[in-house]
Amino acid sequence: MKIAVSQLNYHTGNFAENITKIKHSITKAKKENSDLIVFAEMAICGYPPRDFLQYNDFVEKCQHSILEIAAECKDIAVIIGSPSFNKTKKGKKLYNSAFFIENGKIKAIVNKTLLPTYDIFDEYRYFEPNDVFNIIEYKGEKIALTICEDLWNVDKHPLYKVTPMDELVKLSPTLLINIAASPYNYEQNKIRKEILCNNAKEYKLPLVYVNHVGAQSELIFDGGSMVIDNKGNIINELKYFEEDFLIIDTAKPAIDVNKKKYSQIESIHNALVLGIKDYFGKLGFNKAILGLSGGIDSAVTIVLAVKALGKENVLPVLLPSRYSSDHSVNDAVKLAENLGCKYEVINIEEAFNGFENTLKPLFADRPTDLTEENIQARVRAVILMALTNKFGYILLNTSNKSEAAVGYGTLYGDMCGGISVIGDLYKTQVYELARLINKEKHIIPKNTIIKPPSAELRPEQKDSDSLPEYEILDKNLYQYIEMSKSPDDIIAMGFDKEIVYKSCRLVNISEYKRHQSPPILRVSPKAFGMGRRMPIVGKYLL
Amino acid sequence: MKIAVSQLNYHTGNFAENITKIKHSITKAKKENSDLIVFAEMAICGYPPRDFLQYNDFVEKCQHSILEIAAECKDIAVIIGSPSFNKTKKGKKLYNSAFFIENGKIKAIVNKTLLPTYDIFDEYRYFEPNDVFNIIEYKGEKIALTICEDLWNVDKHPLYKVTPMDELVKLSPTLLINIAASPYNYEQNKIRKEILCNNAKEYKLPLVYVNHVGAQSELIFDGGSMVIDNKGNIINELKYFEEDFLIIDTAKPAIDVNKKKYSQIESIHNALVLGIKDYFGKLGFNKAILGLSGGIDSAVTIVLAVKALGKENVLPVLLPSRYSSDHSVNDAVKLAENLGCKYEVINIEEAFNGFENTLKPLFADRPTDLTEENIQARVRAVILMALTNKFGYILLNTSNKSEAAVGYGTLYGDMCGGISVIGDLYKTQVYELARLINKEKHIIPKNTIIKPPSAELRPEQKDSDSLPEYEILDKNLYQYIEMSKSPDDIIAMGFDKEIVYKSCRLVNISEYKRHQSPPILRVSPKAFGMGRRMPIVGKYLL
Repeated sequence: MKIAVSQLNYHTGNFAENITKIKHSITKAKKENSDLIVFAEMAICGYPPRDFLQYNDFVEKCQHSILEIAAECKDIAVIIGSPSFNKTKKGKKLYNSAFFIENGKIKAIVNKTLLPTYDIFDEYRYFEPNDVFNIIEYKGEKIALTICEDLWNVDKHPLYKVTPMDELVKLSPTLLINIAASPYNYEQNKIRKEILCNNAKEYKLPLVYVNHVGAQSELIFDGGSMVIDNKGNIINELKYFEEDFLIIDTAKPAIDVNKKKYSQIESIHNALVLGIKDYFGKLGFNKAILGLSGGIDSAVTIVLAVKALGKENVLPVLLPSRYSSDHSVNDAVKLAENLGCKYEVINIEEAFNGFENTLKPLFADRPTDLTEENIQARVRAVILMALTNKFGYILLNTSNKSEAAVGYGTLYGDMCGGISVIGDLYKTQVYELARLINKEKHIIPKNTIIKPPSAELRPEQKDSDSLPEYEILDKNLYQYIEMSKSPDDIIAMGFDKEIVYKSCRLVNISEYKRHQSPPILRVSPKAFGMGRRMPIVGKYLL
Repeated sequence: MKIAVSQLNYHTGNFAENITKIKHSITKAKKENSDLIVFAEMAICGYPPRDFLQYNDFVEKCQHSILEIAAECKDIAVIIGSPSFNKTKKGKKLYNSAFFIENGKIKAIVNKTLLPTYDIFDEYRYFEPNDVFNIIEYKGEKIALTICEDLWNVDKHPLYKVTPMDELVKLSPTLLINIAASPYNYEQNKIRKEILCNNAKEYKLPLVYVNHVGAQSELIFDGGSMVIDNKGNIINELKYFEEDFLIIDTAKPAIDVNKKKYSQIESIHNALVLGIKDYFGKLGFNKAILGLSGGIDSAVTIVLAVKALGKENVLPVLLPSRYSSDHSVNDAVKLAENLGCKYEVINIEEAFNGFENTLKPLFADRPTDLTEENIQARVRAVILMALTNKFGYILLNTSNKSEAAVGYGTLYGDMCGGISVIGDLYKTQVYELARLINKEKHIIPKNTIIKPPSAELRPEQKDSDSLPEYEILDKNLYQYIEMSKSPDDIIAMGFDKEIVYKSCRLVNISEYKRHQSPPILRVSPKAFGMGRRMPIVGKYLL
């Protein structure tokens, strides 16, 4: 059987565009005499549709789109993901379904059994889990059709009481198909391959796996659809971070895997470039603006933005104050020039003075403190936002994860922006990414990489005045945030007690700031945002 | 049997404080020879603990707290809610449990069967549902112990396939106890009473119902614990929006219900006052600041804040610009004086000019537009935030739901604040609340109530220049947001097609702004915030 694998970049709720892409793929598959074409989970509406699913109208539009596609399915069968209504009058109103379409008709609807409801996933919010198991017979194959998480009940302490493949295998399938919406994080690809290969091996079935590619706000889907033989070997592997299309013949498997292996930091780089590109493209924008300080965070952000949007579409703005060092300004100019970007220099003194004078009667002789530092950061934000309003830019946020974690940033100041580009990278990872960028071509000035980090909001300020060294802080934060270790666990690993308690406390008391952060492009297994939901008035560890 | 009902205001993660309150209640109940005392769902850690539950350490602290309380339980039994570990090695790691403690020992653990995972609830994110049903025998009673949602599987299209009481009733219970964490919204009390009374009546069992009181960030718990007889009549009703304590004797039921009935708008008023009070109290703050414009939104917000925090703890700041009308300033001053609040007047012209001058070279001869309006709003925010930083206030956000819905507000400007007080009230509801406030005592100047709403960001500006009349807009928004109706459904109800499409589109394209909003005190069945989760790059209806 000839099977086409269609790995597409969908746009949530954009039915017209999604259908066009899907039809185009079907036409292509038909031309090459494919028997079947497989699209991803929820391909019809994009993933995750989130609370759009609570509009009947939205789900009806999905149904109409399925019918529209079915009309194209002559001489080819289609497997495609879509929400569908639960007509049993018991349980949640919807299923997360895979439609099997043949000869213009919906021949079978398979519903998802295991509904991920953790981290960034909310599937049980919308869907009723499946509890009937059937296979699909088509052109001599007996297909076990599953949806993403259905193959993932593999922990030592399994998350679900049912394992769908244990049920399906009783019906003697000959082929396993899994349609997925499995977002990228820098650990996901390894785990995903392992789990899929283990499934193929354990159930002795060849596996066709079809994933999404493209970014939906914070979530980045990396693609990497694949075909695995019944011994658990990857036979075909589709591209990462790009749309791709492949036809395989189950009778004549031909090995074709990605020759080039990406390192973890390279995959992060590619994910972030795609994340920026799709955030702008799917919102209908093409021009970005950002504050360029001469520091490492804005340097890495602008490089990624230029790769995503083109140098002509990125405007760096230097916003020096009385505390900005010459080298900062020089480093920023150098970088803009290296990138070939036009840049603006806007001194913030006059606006800052305006606030100093305005507030003088109220502040009287109180000493200068964080207040004045925050005013500077906010003056910069007002200027950048004014430029977005006047000229139609989106402001890129340049905060990193270490800062966001401990609240080392000014709300409504440097925490502003439409999307946070490197907000899921610890400071040490930002440096790693800078080194990767410079390996290809020396773009980021050396001084930006080697000088000690500083917010430059008061004379001689250094991040290390307020925070532990990032080498230590980041490891500590990783244990607390990514690994959910308690302070005592972390101390037991050999970290300094005072630093551990201080950092964990800072994370918890900064929740109110992160609550008002821009969405953050997610590249780690535990990013701030929809995947980490914390109380604001909670008192834990404080 | 004498049963004590303890309705307390817990603080999420604040084990020390929660345990102290719980022990104090137990002592009180013992003094009056109660046989049993009942606390709410998740009383140990507060509700909702959200992702704190992903820290084993947090759940272990809950277990230790239970043991500490058990040590106090001589001569009295205790029912109390807490998370507990799932030791079966299958399914989610935790249960949402009710502990039955007797003679210093944990005699039974009952786990929640129905896990609400919709709107603001995320319980299946954390908990494995129960599937074993037992009753608890104690002093001649056979107790069917249930947890909140366990009694709520009542829709015509029921949300769950199991109904716990249908199982428990087979074991011939004599008493039904339900411990809950049921947050307030202005429709909830009626629905809650109906469902609880129907349960008592259907299963012919007296019911003791114990709820939380107090606010946890956006969620406000209204209390209203109650005792219902086996015919479905409410016998006892505890206070709303206050802690309360009651001892009943199952052998001698005595009717004692709240004499005073509150209207919907009165309950909203009380909810918001409690919401402010607890937001500040639980964060350890006591002083609020806000911009007072002379308009209705900031007027209602300050009145509620003064009720919650005291007039000496609320600082209104008038921030006039060249576009502020005299009457606005006068109305604002009058209101501050009526409330007995000190106030500050800070003219924003100098700071605004600072930006105008700074941006002139870039803006050149471009016409004035929304940019300049936004700068004014942001200058005000910078000033207010500077005061919070210097003096330790929390800024109150004064946006209403109509604005938040259609994006009629400036991000990082008037959308700033630690907590949004009236962000879940449509503009027409804000007026209703103003009238209620003035009924008691004429505080809000008449002119504030009767003049046409205006942002005063350009000459002669009125909200109605950009938006449909609120009377129409709000009804439209209610159908779209609260009722999840599609634009076509709403048009079919008789609304104007153009207005309907315009408003729904505005709601969808403003998602990126709301994503960065402060938490909003929730009083409606569908508030912006954790209960409404929308894609940002989604294209639906655009």
